[in-house]
Amino acid sequence: MSSANGASKGAVSRAPEGYKRVKMVLAYNGADFRGLAPQPEVRTVVGQLGLVLQPFGDTIDLVMSGRTDAGVHGWGQVLSFDLPNAADLVKIQKSVNSRMGPEVVVRSLEEATPTFHARYDATGRHYRYRVLNTAVANPFTSTVAWHVPQPLDTDRMNEGAQAFHGQHDFSSFCRRPKQDPGEVPVTLTRSIRATQWTEVADHELLFEIAGSAFCHQMVRSIVGFLVAIGRGKRNPDDVTTVLEARDRKYAEPLAPPHGLTLWHVDY
Amino acid sequence: MSSANGASKGAVSRAPEGYKRVKMVLAYNGADFRGLAPQPEVRTVVGQLGLVLQPFGDTIDLVMSGRTDAGVHGWGQVLSFDLPNAADLVKIQKSVNSRMGPEVVVRSLEEATPTFHARYDATGRHYRYRVLNTAVANPFTSTVAWHVPQPLDTDRMNEGAQAFHGQHDFSSFCRRPKQDPGEVPVTLTRSIRATQWTEVADHELLFEIAGSAFCHQMVRSIVGFLVAIGRGKRNPDDVTTVLEARDRKYAEPLAPPHGLTLWHVDY
Repeated sequence: MSSANGASKGAVSRAPEGYKRVKMVLAYNGADFRGLAPQPEVRTVVGQLGLVLQPFGDTIDLVMSGRTDAGVHGWGQVLSFDLPNAADLVKIQKSVNSRMGPEVVVRSLEEATPTFHARYDATGRHYRYRVLNTAVANPFTSTVAWHVPQPLDTDRMNEGAQAFHGQHDFSSFCRRPKQDPGEVPVTLTRSIRATQWTEVADHELLFEIAGSAFCHQMVRSIVGFLVAIGRGKRNPDDVTTVLEARDRKYAEPLAPPHGLTLWHVDY
Repeated sequence: MSSANGASKGAVSRAPEGYKRVKMVLAYNGADFRGLAPQPEVRTVVGQLGLVLQPFGDTIDLVMSGRTDAGVHGWGQVLSFDLPNAADLVKIQKSVNSRMGPEVVVRSLEEATPTFHARYDATGRHYRYRVLNTAVANPFTSTVAWHVPQPLDTDRMNEGAQAFHGQHDFSSFCRRPKQDPGEVPVTLTRSIRATQWTEVADHELLFEIAGSAFCHQMVRSIVGFLVAIGRGKRNPDDVTTVLEARDRKYAEPLAPPHGLTLWHVDY
């Protein structure tokens, strides 16, 4: 069975006799937590969730669709875990929401197929990144949008975004996981289905990006690069050059975490 | 000259020799403060602002367009005060924003006429109130919108809102200020120009109300009553009956402060 931190890569498990597999859709404001995945002695979203769920099952292993970094938000994060057959899901959703709200909200909790796995079964992930492009900041979006005071050219940013479409080796835009010397390097090849900047409100830009999977810090690195293009520091053509270089040193600084939200996971 | 808490009612002052009168438009997220007006030993918006402005003038008296209660937000709060003629307003705006942001943001700071008074010269105030009408809460609007999980009928709410238009004695919808026995009671007659509920996003309701002036807790009391109408606890016709009763005991509980924003002040 998967461990609570979602890191195990064992065979896909089935809910044991007397238990049902459930699917939880979770929204969280990352501003108040030190990340999503449980860590010792630190207040994390899933760490707190595990404590609140304790009364409902002996050892509940919470599998996440994927991790999000400290400060990153979730709107459609998905978890899978097992609960006793008799568990009342409506009551558990209410109980968790009354104890964790309003920073963490269970949007839905329903029975899934006995082998449903929040991570392995995911076929697509959608992220959103918000940028507030005004001269002065806004006290109401300061924890959910990156405030960029310099003028941004969204046409240039969309031209650059277009160059990320399709399958690429994202070594220039990902933090490579630590591996032992001699290990076969993990692949950072990923496939991007859609990227788009839209002005959703006056001077408020929304970036949407979807793909099958993302490597670590990939969305923030892409956003950081596209904002550099929007400011005129880089050119849209540079995207292809930097992708081909396969080296992070040619990229731009990461966009800050608080503008990013894991929006939806496809199954 | 007006006192820092804006409570003085003396003759309208003129900026003294060597000083210029300025107009500041201020946005603040009320969640992190114990109200707007300075109070001893408590962290308030204008209390903090006064500390940050100290280096720019010996004794700066900050006059507010009006107070907002603890938890209430401002987007277009206006302050008037005097600064030495040589003061660089662009530099002061930047300095305040770097020291108070992101919860408090100076949206603009400009020279006004020498007798401009943020409170006495105001001809209209616009407030906005946000309601999130979904079964489960939302971690991203929890400090700026009232979460009402029960279904609301916005047509009924707008019918009730319509009944507030025009001039009325709002004794049923205001907290009467403390007065000494024998004093002539202050009038709570006010004039409402426009009220409207709009569904601005999926299940997110925005209430806009404008008038020349509002008495204490008036908008929250009106919103509390209209939401009771939307839930079916009261009828739209009750608005007129309760206005005529001139007694708060016939009203409904106040809507919570965190949904309310002072949106704009007319001059």
